Amino acid sequence: MSGRPELPKIAATLYEEIKDIAIVSPHGHCDPSWFSENAPFPDPATLLVTPDHYVFRMLYSQGVALEDLGIGVPEDKRDPREIFRLFASHWHLFLGTPSRAWIEYTLRKTLGIKEVLSAETTDLVYDQIAAKLTEKVFRPREAMEALNIEVLATTDGALDSLDAHAAMRSSGWQGSVIPTFRPDDILNPLRPGHADNIVRLGDMTGEDTATFAGFLTAIEKRRAFFRSLGATATDHDVPFLMTGWLARAEIETLHGKAIEGALSEDEALQYYGHMLIEMAQMSADDGMVMQVHAGSMRSTNHEVLAKFGPDKGADIPIAIDWVRGLDALLNRVGNHPNFRLLAFTLDESTYARELAPMAGHWPCMRLGPPWWFHDSANGIRRYFDNVVETAGYWNLAGFNDDTRAFLSIPARHDLWRRGVSLHLNDQVERGVFGLNDARRLAPLLTRDLAIDAYRLED
Amino acid sequence: MSGRPELPKIAATLYEEIKDIAIVSPHGHCDPSWFSENAPFPDPATLLVTPDHYVFRMLYSQGVALEDLGIGVPEDKRDPREIFRLFASHWHLFLGTPSRAWIEYTLRKTLGIKEVLSAETTDLVYDQIAAKLTEKVFRPREAMEALNIEVLATTDGALDSLDAHAAMRSSGWQGSVIPTFRPDDILNPLRPGHADNIVRLGDMTGEDTATFAGFLTAIEKRRAFFRSLGATATDHDVPFLMTGWLARAEIETLHGKAIEGALSEDEALQYYGHMLIEMAQMSADDGMVMQVHAGSMRSTNHEVLAKFGPDKGADIPIAIDWVRGLDALLNRVGNHPNFRLLAFTLDESTYARELAPMAGHWPCMRLGPPWWFHDSANGIRRYFDNVVETAGYWNLAGFNDDTRAFLSIPARHDLWRRGVSLHLNDQVERGVFGLNDARRLAPLLTRDLAIDAYRLED
Amino acid sequence: MSGRPELPKIAATLYEEIKDIAIVSPHGHCDPSWFSENAPFPDPATLLVTPDHYVFRMLYSQGVALEDLGIGVPEDKRDPREIFRLFASHWHLFLGTPSRAWIEYTLRKTLGIKEVLSAETTDLVYDQIAAKLTEKVFRPREAMEALNIEVLATTDGALDSLDAHAAMRSSGWQGSVIPTFRPDDILNPLRPGHADNIVRLGDMTGEDTATFAGFLTAIEKRRAFFRSLGATATDHDVPFLMTGWLARAEIETLHGKAIEGALSEDEALQYYGHMLIEMAQMSADDGMVMQVHAGSMRSTNHEVLAKFGPDKGADIPIAIDWVRGLDALLNRVGNHPNFRLLAFTLDESTYARELAPMAGHWPCMRLGPPWWFHDSANGIRRYFDNVVETAGYWNLAGFNDDTRAFLSIPARHDLWRRGVSLHLNDQVERGVFGLNDARRLAPLLTRDLAIDAYRLED
Repeated sequence: MSGRPELPKIAATLYEEIKDIAIVSPHGHCDPSWFSENAPFPDPATLLVTPDHYVFRMLYSQGVALEDLGIGVPEDKRDPREIFRLFASHWHLFLGTPSRAWIEYTLRKTLGIKEVLSAETTDLVYDQIAAKLTEKVFRPREAMEALNIEVLATTDGALDSLDAHAAMRSSGWQGSVIPTFRPDDILNPLRPGHADNIVRLGDMTGEDTATFAGFLTAIEKRRAFFRSLGATATDHDVPFLMTGWLARAEIETLHGKAIEGALSEDEALQYYGHMLIEMAQMSADDGMVMQVHAGSMRSTNHEVLAKFGPDKGADIPIAIDWVRGLDALLNRVGNHPNFRLLAFTLDESTYARELAPMAGHWPCMRLGPPWWFHDSANGIRRYFDNVVETAGYWNLAGFNDDTRAFLSIPARHDLWRRGVSLHLNDQVERGVFGLNDARRLAPLLTRDLAIDAYRLED
Repeated sequence: MSGRPELPKIAATLYEEIKDIAIVSPHGHCDPSWFSENAPFPDPATLLVTPDHYVFRMLYSQGVALEDLGIGVPEDKRDPREIFRLFASHWHLFLGTPSRAWIEYTLRKTLGIKEVLSAETTDLVYDQIAAKLTEKVFRPREAMEALNIEVLATTDGALDSLDAHAAMRSSGWQGSVIPTFRPDDILNPLRPGHADNIVRLGDMTGEDTATFAGFLTAIEKRRAFFRSLGATATDHDVPFLMTGWLARAEIETLHGKAIEGALSEDEALQYYGHMLIEMAQMSADDGMVMQVHAGSMRSTNHEVLAKFGPDKGADIPIAIDWVRGLDALLNRVGNHPNFRLLAFTLDESTYARELAPMAGHWPCMRLGPPWWFHDSANGIRRYFDNVVETAGYWNLAGFNDDTRAFLSIPARHDLWRRGVSLHLNDQVERGVFGLNDARRLAPLLTRDLAIDAYRLED
Repeated sequence: MSGRPELPKIAATLYEEIKDIAIVSPHGHCDPSWFSENAPFPDPATLLVTPDHYVFRMLYSQGVALEDLGIGVPEDKRDPREIFRLFASHWHLFLGTPSRAWIEYTLRKTLGIKEVLSAETTDLVYDQIAAKLTEKVFRPREAMEALNIEVLATTDGALDSLDAHAAMRSSGWQGSVIPTFRPDDILNPLRPGHADNIVRLGDMTGEDTATFAGFLTAIEKRRAFFRSLGATATDHDVPFLMTGWLARAEIETLHGKAIEGALSEDEALQYYGHMLIEMAQMSADDGMVMQVHAGSMRSTNHEVLAKFGPDKGADIPIAIDWVRGLDALLNRVGNHPNFRLLAFTLDESTYARELAPMAGHWPCMRLGPPWWFHDSANGIRRYFDNVVETAGYWNLAGFNDDTRAFLSIPARHDLWRRGVSLHLNDQVERGVFGLNDARRLAPLLTRDLAIDAYRLED
């Protein structure tokens, strides 16, 4: 097993100062019902294998059938111990990946498992994890405190009732779990069920969403409802980044076609490209921070999509043009003092070429941390290497873990904090600035920039 | 002259363990007749300068006329000593390039030349090389053993008789030199002579290649013939990556136009894009590993092409879209358990963005090693840096040298093995994994992954 | 404040040998009237803040109003001390940026200010700078010598009278300040005033620029006039790289439309794409070195453009295709022995993929140094990392500072020289070549390649 190596001296000093700072997790995919229900997490396979697309994609790439990992299999037909054995017997495949680093940290540090995972120890490790999961401290609410999580944002569809969030609030629990408004399903006509979702939006809000004016009012109402439960941000999945403002008559015509499901693909892109600008305008009005996650081509394996549904490891990044893609949006809202846009990319060639120069100019823009495949030791190093010289530090949005694996949150933040320490270590060693500046930047990158970027200070 | 520096401690340990492993060379461009005829290699200029497009491109870029390097000059009109002098007097131009590293290694280690190359020593070095080339151990067959080459694949056109390969086999020689099926000339209508080649294919196979059905059968026959002489792989040069499946009637219509040379450029791309999927399907059937080398824009200097022909140093990489380019092919064959696709790119921005995520999902995909301009010390470092975290190690295809310079093969594998050792050294130092894992990975990257990827185990 | 760290041993040796070499500045944006008039530089804010788009863009990105920095404010309405205070109170924003490194060097080394800049010391530093600026040694002519600048090229529009250059020459001053021919305003129909500029060109040259033949002759006359004042190079800003040769009738038709301002956007691109080839041909004839700075999308913030004009920090790089973009130009002029093309990119993904392979083949091509956002410590490292293995060193154009901030020239060359020393240090440590070769390359990269690339030897 890999031992964590000694950090270089300056990095070690910095890491020591930030490693215990409370975790701010302003973007992720935890299930809010975990916190409203506070049930124990289930078995080790359901904790670490079956829902983790980083894990099962790698196994699938080496010939393991998704069914054998419990995917697409009803819970009562799965044998979690067998699934965990299959995973453990392929553990070598993860050498060099962040998945391995996260899982090792989660087992050793978070769960306190001493046994090292391997094909031979699989049952032993399985039993030890299973035992841990019965302890009260690993129930969601208790774990929030035990894991030192100050605030955690979930990601919730525009049509979500937010019942779990409301139940949490009314329960008197003091933990800070807040929703995020993710309206992809009502804004992007290329997503399945879009037209129906607009009808449902009307039902939920009492607005006539068949009219464009009613549609906009309905969205505003939902945004306000999300805010009433603590939301400070919206989130947008944008596979092909394109924004463009349409005249009112045009967008009304397209909206009419959208509710009939009659848009061509090109019209659908135009429609979504306009709606993103509407969202930016609403953000300038209501102060919700707009997150754009762009450039993931979803479900590229059609057979896997048909059998197992979306989010099954076949989302692949594509090249993206932030400059022309955001041009219309920025030229409409980009200079507004109340507007904030956080950009996340999967195309690292845009870090230095586009995003850092844009963030170093537009008052609204901040750069999200390395996302998805790039949330890794090398990815973090490349990110700092490419963005800081042009964007500076204050145009960054700190870190977020973007995970649905609650117990891995400390692992992910720890990897970031080590990356921050190593980056600042190099800056000091190369004379870019001195240790005092590094000590000022370390907590900023660990927590304060995230608080500021997501407007969580209040 | 540059001395090889001491490797860092862990790298040195690993390098020691892999430096003498037998060389597996599963993709390259050696001439099979060298091994069937076993004639000595000719003079130093013909060995090192005239056929090496890495070398003469650099000289041309600095004003040396290609004719003065013997290019386009009949062999009996060339003065190899003068050519070698011209090369030696420009030796400084290669400072910092892999060409210099390869040639230095070849001279010093492979040929045992003690004299250091310079403008002053050119005649001395020339004579020493020339003397070496007369030694029996440097004849192709003997060198296979002396250079510790376990297996070497050539690259052969679909219409090649493979007489040299057959002669090798029937000669009783035990060396393992195998062909690779490269059907670009019969599949890509944008290549010169395409229509004629289809006629020749019919003649060779006794099939009516004027019909699409006959064409497919003829290709299957050629693939079988290549396999009968040991081939395990096909290879495809794809300048502009695009695949798309056409209905039978459509492809038959295009085939009819193709044999009349009447395809438009767009139709030609569609035709080739369909044929690549046919090749993938045949690979799923017959088990031949499909190599795709994509993104080299060929012969961009028209004057040089007209005077000297193709492969004269003016092939330049272009940006490429692997996700959309392979979409149709992968969605037709990508989940087939018997299909294997090795992808080679010249666009390093696709390593982390596209190829590593794809290889980390699709069961068929493995990533080829750094290719061409990127087969270099920095290129190898960037490759590992960008792909391992997302693809892991088992989705890599090990190394291949891709060279037509037989005596430089050890030099190229040595550069890779040093790169592997340095990469693993860094992984251990940064705590990604421990020395034991590094020692497991080093021989894997040196030999075993190549054996596995190319199905050479049998 | 950051102290310059100790360089590693080999780097320190190399740096010591090159740090005092005279500065060659073959491309930049200093105002020639500074040297003809030799007036002292004005106050610290006008020296360091108001004209520096690197500086005010960062402040604007963090909510500082451009007006508060004196931008768009008449000089007599500005309070330079207040502007400087505003700048100093945001000094932390520049941590990690080259701007901070340049300004620190300029203050400490060039101006000899001992006080460290901060919000607290702003007035003290302001006064110290202001005092320095009154010293004779910091007047432009005296500073040329004090700063050890051997030659400095300005950048001058095709319609510029060059009166300042002429005045310099006739004054008897011995300093070497030369113009560069920048004809964007008469060649690119997408620039404002293009049609009027063609009329003005006719007036200046006595040619009938309404005819295409007269237009070409007029350009040749201007080029000759620039050469008569020492120019050795032209410079071209090419937002969207595209070249294509048009038949005479076609270009004449487009020229006719151009002078009426009647070109469509597509026609304008075609027109400019043809004119770039005309420039290349003239360069082959008259020997002027052709610089192409490609891929900056200008003035992407329309509100800022409307209020404050161009060059206000909203120029953002876009992806660029050098291979197809230069195809027509290179295939017309690229093999001409007298033609030289220097390419500058803002898309680093083209370094290894396109530019290094092109420079390593085409006799005319040399690679310009890292440009703009990439003229930074990391940018320099990435540049060497990506280009040297394929292009070698002799296909590079050395360094140029590209600045309009005269007193920061030594700072910028120093950053480059440190980068060169660190790069060569690494090459020696990794055994790419030995110290002797590094010592040969260091002055080459510092000065000699620039002299050679720009044909300044005469």
